[in-house]
Amino acid sequence: MAKKMWGGRFKEEIDPDFWQFSGSLDCDKVLLEYDIKGSIAHVKMLSKCNIIPKKEAASIEKALSAMLKDYQQGKLKIDPNAEDVHTAVLIALSKRIGKQADYLHTARSRNDLVVLDLKMYCKDNLKSIIVLLTKLQVALAGFAKKYIDVVMPGYTHTQHAVPILVSHQILAYVNMLDRDKQRLESAYERVDEMPLGSCAMAGTGLAIDREYVAKLLGFSKVSANSIDAVASRDFVIEILSTLSILAMHMSRICQDLIFYSCSDLGFLDIAENYCTGSSIMPQKKNPDSLELIRATAAKIYADLISVLVMMKGLPISYNRDMQFDKKPLFNSIKDTSYCLKILAGIFKTIKVNREKIESALASDDTIYAVDIADYLVRKGIPFHQAHNLVGRIISYAENKKKKLSELSINELKKFTKIFAEDIFKVFNAKRSVMLKKSMGSTNPLLVRQQIAKWEKKLRA
Amino acid sequence: MAKKMWGGRFKEEIDPDFWQFSGSLDCDKVLLEYDIKGSIAHVKMLSKCNIIPKKEAASIEKALSAMLKDYQQGKLKIDPNAEDVHTAVLIALSKRIGKQADYLHTARSRNDLVVLDLKMYCKDNLKSIIVLLTKLQVALAGFAKKYIDVVMPGYTHTQHAVPILVSHQILAYVNMLDRDKQRLESAYERVDEMPLGSCAMAGTGLAIDREYVAKLLGFSKVSANSIDAVASRDFVIEILSTLSILAMHMSRICQDLIFYSCSDLGFLDIAENYCTGSSIMPQKKNPDSLELIRATAAKIYADLISVLVMMKGLPISYNRDMQFDKKPLFNSIKDTSYCLKILAGIFKTIKVNREKIESALASDDTIYAVDIADYLVRKGIPFHQAHNLVGRIISYAENKKKKLSELSINELKKFTKIFAEDIFKVFNAKRSVMLKKSMGSTNPLLVRQQIAKWEKKLRA
Amino acid sequence: MAKKMWGGRFKEEIDPDFWQFSGSLDCDKVLLEYDIKGSIAHVKMLSKCNIIPKKEAASIEKALSAMLKDYQQGKLKIDPNAEDVHTAVLIALSKRIGKQADYLHTARSRNDLVVLDLKMYCKDNLKSIIVLLTKLQVALAGFAKKYIDVVMPGYTHTQHAVPILVSHQILAYVNMLDRDKQRLESAYERVDEMPLGSCAMAGTGLAIDREYVAKLLGFSKVSANSIDAVASRDFVIEILSTLSILAMHMSRICQDLIFYSCSDLGFLDIAENYCTGSSIMPQKKNPDSLELIRATAAKIYADLISVLVMMKGLPISYNRDMQFDKKPLFNSIKDTSYCLKILAGIFKTIKVNREKIESALASDDTIYAVDIADYLVRKGIPFHQAHNLVGRIISYAENKKKKLSELSINELKKFTKIFAEDIFKVFNAKRSVMLKKSMGSTNPLLVRQQIAKWEKKLRA
Amino acid sequence: MAKKMWGGRFKEEIDPDFWQFSGSLDCDKVLLEYDIKGSIAHVKMLSKCNIIPKKEAASIEKALSAMLKDYQQGKLKIDPNAEDVHTAVLIALSKRIGKQADYLHTARSRNDLVVLDLKMYCKDNLKSIIVLLTKLQVALAGFAKKYIDVVMPGYTHTQHAVPILVSHQILAYVNMLDRDKQRLESAYERVDEMPLGSCAMAGTGLAIDREYVAKLLGFSKVSANSIDAVASRDFVIEILSTLSILAMHMSRICQDLIFYSCSDLGFLDIAENYCTGSSIMPQKKNPDSLELIRATAAKIYADLISVLVMMKGLPISYNRDMQFDKKPLFNSIKDTSYCLKILAGIFKTIKVNREKIESALASDDTIYAVDIADYLVRKGIPFHQAHNLVGRIISYAENKKKKLSELSINELKKFTKIFAEDIFKVFNAKRSVMLKKSMGSTNPLLVRQQIAKWEKKLRA
Repeated sequence: MAKKMWGGRFKEEIDPDFWQFSGSLDCDKVLLEYDIKGSIAHVKMLSKCNIIPKKEAASIEKALSAMLKDYQQGKLKIDPNAEDVHTAVLIALSKRIGKQADYLHTARSRNDLVVLDLKMYCKDNLKSIIVLLTKLQVALAGFAKKYIDVVMPGYTHTQHAVPILVSHQILAYVNMLDRDKQRLESAYERVDEMPLGSCAMAGTGLAIDREYVAKLLGFSKVSANSIDAVASRDFVIEILSTLSILAMHMSRICQDLIFYSCSDLGFLDIAENYCTGSSIMPQKKNPDSLELIRATAAKIYADLISVLVMMKGLPISYNRDMQFDKKPLFNSIKDTSYCLKILAGIFKTIKVNREKIESALASDDTIYAVDIADYLVRKGIPFHQAHNLVGRIISYAENKKKKLSELSINELKKFTKIFAEDIFKVFNAKRSVMLKKSMGSTNPLLVRQQIAKWEKKLRA
Repeated sequence: MAKKMWGGRFKEEIDPDFWQFSGSLDCDKVLLEYDIKGSIAHVKMLSKCNIIPKKEAASIEKALSAMLKDYQQGKLKIDPNAEDVHTAVLIALSKRIGKQADYLHTARSRNDLVVLDLKMYCKDNLKSIIVLLTKLQVALAGFAKKYIDVVMPGYTHTQHAVPILVSHQILAYVNMLDRDKQRLESAYERVDEMPLGSCAMAGTGLAIDREYVAKLLGFSKVSANSIDAVASRDFVIEILSTLSILAMHMSRICQDLIFYSCSDLGFLDIAENYCTGSSIMPQKKNPDSLELIRATAAKIYADLISVLVMMKGLPISYNRDMQFDKKPLFNSIKDTSYCLKILAGIFKTIKVNREKIESALASDDTIYAVDIADYLVRKGIPFHQAHNLVGRIISYAENKKKKLSELSINELKKFTKIFAEDIFKVFNAKRSVMLKKSMGSTNPLLVRQQIAKWEKKLRA
Repeated sequence: MAKKMWGGRFKEEIDPDFWQFSGSLDCDKVLLEYDIKGSIAHVKMLSKCNIIPKKEAASIEKALSAMLKDYQQGKLKIDPNAEDVHTAVLIALSKRIGKQADYLHTARSRNDLVVLDLKMYCKDNLKSIIVLLTKLQVALAGFAKKYIDVVMPGYTHTQHAVPILVSHQILAYVNMLDRDKQRLESAYERVDEMPLGSCAMAGTGLAIDREYVAKLLGFSKVSANSIDAVASRDFVIEILSTLSILAMHMSRICQDLIFYSCSDLGFLDIAENYCTGSSIMPQKKNPDSLELIRATAAKIYADLISVLVMMKGLPISYNRDMQFDKKPLFNSIKDTSYCLKILAGIFKTIKVNREKIESALASDDTIYAVDIADYLVRKGIPFHQAHNLVGRIISYAENKKKKLSELSINELKKFTKIFAEDIFKVFNAKRSVMLKKSMGSTNPLLVRQQIAKWEKKLRA
Repeated sequence: MAKKMWGGRFKEEIDPDFWQFSGSLDCDKVLLEYDIKGSIAHVKMLSKCNIIPKKEAASIEKALSAMLKDYQQGKLKIDPNAEDVHTAVLIALSKRIGKQADYLHTARSRNDLVVLDLKMYCKDNLKSIIVLLTKLQVALAGFAKKYIDVVMPGYTHTQHAVPILVSHQILAYVNMLDRDKQRLESAYERVDEMPLGSCAMAGTGLAIDREYVAKLLGFSKVSANSIDAVASRDFVIEILSTLSILAMHMSRICQDLIFYSCSDLGFLDIAENYCTGSSIMPQKKNPDSLELIRATAAKIYADLISVLVMMKGLPISYNRDMQFDKKPLFNSIKDTSYCLKILAGIFKTIKVNREKIESALASDDTIYAVDIADYLVRKGIPFHQAHNLVGRIISYAENKKKKLSELSINELKKFTKIFAEDIFKVFNAKRSVMLKKSMGSTNPLLVRQQIAKWEKKLRA
């Protein structure tokens, strides 16, 4: 068998640059296992339906099973010059059983075969990613539990906002990632449709049994329209957009960690295992792992764009452009897996520097401004007026170069008589979070409940 | 009330360029209705929970309800210089009831309010898009039914592949769009979470009832983490990626129509209602509608990228960057709605030119090459050999400058004795599709079943 | 004259949704001025070449000049229902001079006219952007000069690296922006080509004088190929990529400022004029301007992508898809102008907090690690060994919980005898920068020279 | 020497997943040659400036030169476990000369070294791309010359517009590509700046001679600011945007060829050397090369986006994120080179099918509508009226189911008396192009002049 699965009508040789450029084996060998498994199911069906002779079918099945075993033991050799993975499998099969191999590619086409392989790959890998994602959530929940008592400045606009529990922010991450998981699970449903038998685009005149193949390969249904089956790649794009959102979330988590662990804040200490040094600055312990995960979002976005753009305006049905759906998908799956694993490792080893966090809180008591406003609201002042009043007090304190907590009760009373001595209790971060009452808030009791809820859910 | 909801601590005026650049009213006035409705629910809750005085609450609610009515009648006037839609609503309220309005913004922040408005907007618009999508599917199914008897050349690589039913290709579109619908429905689940009460980022010390607000506004649940609630925009990105895939599908449909209706093929005739002319070429009837829908994919992709990139590496929790999530979302929703409506209109009015299609089929009988190979397979030749054989016959015919159907039985028999006179029946497009047997194939009986299935499903 | 410039062959009315969706006046009215100016030049040429009667030509020219004047005085009214800006100009002309207007659209098409308008727009706006960019550079150079004596921690990986002059970093920005300026100037060359007379795509059979039109409109040359002229939009994409890089640079500058001015570092104080407050947190002074400029990069990237994607795979020559080149271009030009102006304003008003910077330097003397290594290199130790040695000293000090400067000379000598008492001079940020010798380094003398160089260059 | 150039201060081992994920040797080994060449120049300078001992310098230089020779002969072995290419070179050097190698990394850092390597790579590759681009232009000009007499339908909106010379459209491609070449040449200027000696970010205290290094390596200038030098990657993005525009142009050319060579038009015949077949359809000769080049635009756009997004909002100066600038650049350079070569090959071997083109022209005489309008204009009718008149004639003919050329002179005269018998000469494609008069038009004389101009220019 030649390096390609076609050629009868061709009189000319393929241009070598074009052959190099168009060959996809280097990339799609990732699909090798699925191509063999799919072929085994296909040949079983062809035999069962009496489309090819039983004897040859048995021989093909046996040889493919042996190839699969070799593959799993890292021993399968394939021809590096084959045009693509499908051809490589056929060549290897031919080498083992000669002309009997000629029966395998009956009632199928590379157009439907590649979608089959790709969907099998996606099913396996979506499951793996979901497991890794769950492990990261577990690491986060563990971190949240361990540091449940640490209050830190919450930030909006990279400026101090209000005191929060570190664990509350960590649980925000858990929530974000959980929606990513939902999206991955939802994407799985659209992957789980068996395309083989769609052939070139119109189906086949041979009496095949597609549902049998689906059953053998663990698909829950068969595709309903042969043109759609070979022409569509929305399932690839859906996965890539889901991974893009996940990557975005991870990039934000990393940005937070980079900020909290920078030389000046030092709230967190990233373990050396996840840092690298500098070839010129001996003191350096840089959080490269976080930076690379942050940057990975750019790569995965690019993979998403790549497939979106490639598919735009493509005529129905198959076009060779669609070959370029694979590398972006494979890269994104691989990058995501690394990032999830590394990030889980980072959270298991981070150290929290309580002194630095406390000193940051102590240095800035305007962080209690909302608590002061709420104090006034509880005493009957409409919020809008309370807000304005506290703003003016802050401006006054700035002018006096005093901290808020250094103002006397008399100074405060000039703004409104409602202030009493108990206002000074407000300057206490632990109390601030304890006072929170709303569902979903940073109140430690509520946060503990959330941790418990996640522990239970993630164990499931 | 001023043009902004803050300022007590500020001593300087805002820079005019910055004010122009940062003001968002022009864009976010789309949220006006939701901001009022959300505020009505919020004030009801504040009153119920005794956080603000009943009397003032009632007054606020009444005024807001009046504003809502005015809005719905196109009569609500808002201050064009307000910083944003939330401020505009407060200003309008103040104008009606003066200082009583100062109670409304209790136990909420723009950080959670904007997410509330946005989610209400998304819920409404996802529903509308789904309705329009269904209408397009209905138009397609109608078209498929009407032209069920038309066989045309199926294409791969913009080259003739095999004969297919026009209706079969149309149903491919219906299937694609149906997955888009599933994705929109799945995205809805993540939108349907009530964020109000998350306040700045940590929740509030006032004893609010978030579930009551959720119930009033028709949300099925409340958000579980206040930081996540104000910091996350994955729901926006999920919608935009879903719309991007839908736009990709529409761009492909349009590319097909442009090709089939080009001067040279003329298989389809796009109704004049969806074409425009040229200012210089009097004969022109250009399918501009199709081109604009095709190009809309680029716009929606760009909207998706815009929000993905904006969110990348943003620290928790709210940052002003996030203001730029809205315009891309609103634009994409609007563009998608137009495209769905126009495309449905186009399919209702397209005319099929049977003569041109038949003449295209007649001019190229290599389109039956797979049917010839299948003929040989049925007679026992392994597919791979049959394929090669037919390829060589085609090459032979090309050299002889004959069409396949012009070869004599003797010429054919030189390639294999298996050929008999019945081989000539193969050159018949209607027969070709009738012979197809596999589930999901272009066989007219199966396609009719599919049409019936869709009619039932889309009616539901 | 009707709302459109075509229709003779049409029997059906245009679909209202399609008309709404396809109308471009709302967007392309930005081109109004250029359409009129281009038409004046065109009619002058038609008259000079005796293609249309002199009398009617004079009448058209006069009316267009009056329209231009009206436009410049904000008095020109155009029909809001015209299909596009070109049609709007013709309608307005018709209203003034009736049927004489019918001569104007001779030997031109909207296909070449829209490129003309767009190129005139680009030429004007590239010049404006370059002026604004230069003003920002001037503001930066001024800032660098003013704070020439401030030494701060330089950062790599958001970790302290080595001491640098603030001004040195500011000049890095000036250098970046200068390359952006070069790119804008280079893009201008490709814009500066007069397309009119290319007509639909093939040129015209009327004996026009394109070079005369070019001369009248200030173009340096005419386009050489009529198909290329109407089909190409690379000049739009080139501008958008150039603006994307500029936006990227501005986003990095803003990220630096956000970091340096965060609650915890406080190195810089952004003027209130460029900050906004919070509706809930009275203390807040958030650097929203910086965040919005940072986020603008996402918008401009999206505009770039939008046009790149729209143009991909478009057949030659004009397609209606290309209508969507305008909004991205106009938006990016407008956003860039705002960002440049606002950023210049920010740099003119930033205050530097020397105490906080000094305290950051004082708190971390590992920042002198390279200086210690260089000390050893100057005494003959190969760099690689010096680096390793200093690394071990730092590890030793960490274990001892001492700062580097707190180690005794004896402790240091345990690592290498080469250390002498003069090593302690190294812990001095001002001395550190003074010691730098290489071209382009942070040595204050060299930085002053650079400032002088830029002052001279920017004045030119 | 270890696998990394740092570590003195580290007590923990690096995490294996992180090491795998962060290692860049697989990608950046492309830079090997440049790293060695740059190191040779660097060590020469260190020796000349007496920064390291002459003897060791000579030994290093000799060993590096031997390594370079080995590399060029494909014999250089590098440690596959080195962290990056810079480390790999140092390890290899160490293996050859032991501790003497410790002097090489003096007064430089990986931060400046990687930029040096990258700029050397870019300079070489920009030159190569420009050569390939010129070869493609030469192939196009050759094609244009060969088929100078072929008139085909020109298209707008994928609909017949006006007759054009095939060669005129081919020259449009040459013009587009020429602007791409200008952009590449312009990008080169910004690459051509020598960064070494910027070290970590602040320059060095050792008295190096950067201009000497620049001279040795053929750079025309040294970078002016050390922070800018290590922190900036706009030169990478500029190259990627330039390649994106080039890829867009190639995608359009391919789309044209796909359309012109589709089964139904058949104007062009793509040589078998650039086509592939189908595994199921024996007749297939698909233009896969064109489809893959069309799709490559998506890949290169994605590479551009990847770096743009990665750099957005990155703080000054170096961050590890920036490692991800390389793969997109290398991939785009490689893909572009393939596409240029293949496309040139395609144009050298395309065959033009004159019969099919002529039959397409003959089947549709509305393509002369502008010529008819111009006929009327020459006889004094204002263009707008002429346009409308011809439109109505076309509508009339459609109703009568006649071609335009089948209308009698009397029928025409009913629309305007101006028509005379000579109007029927208009239905002639060769005459149509001959009549064109404007500069840049499709007139064969002008097109011949253009071909001559390009031949001369491209030979230079």
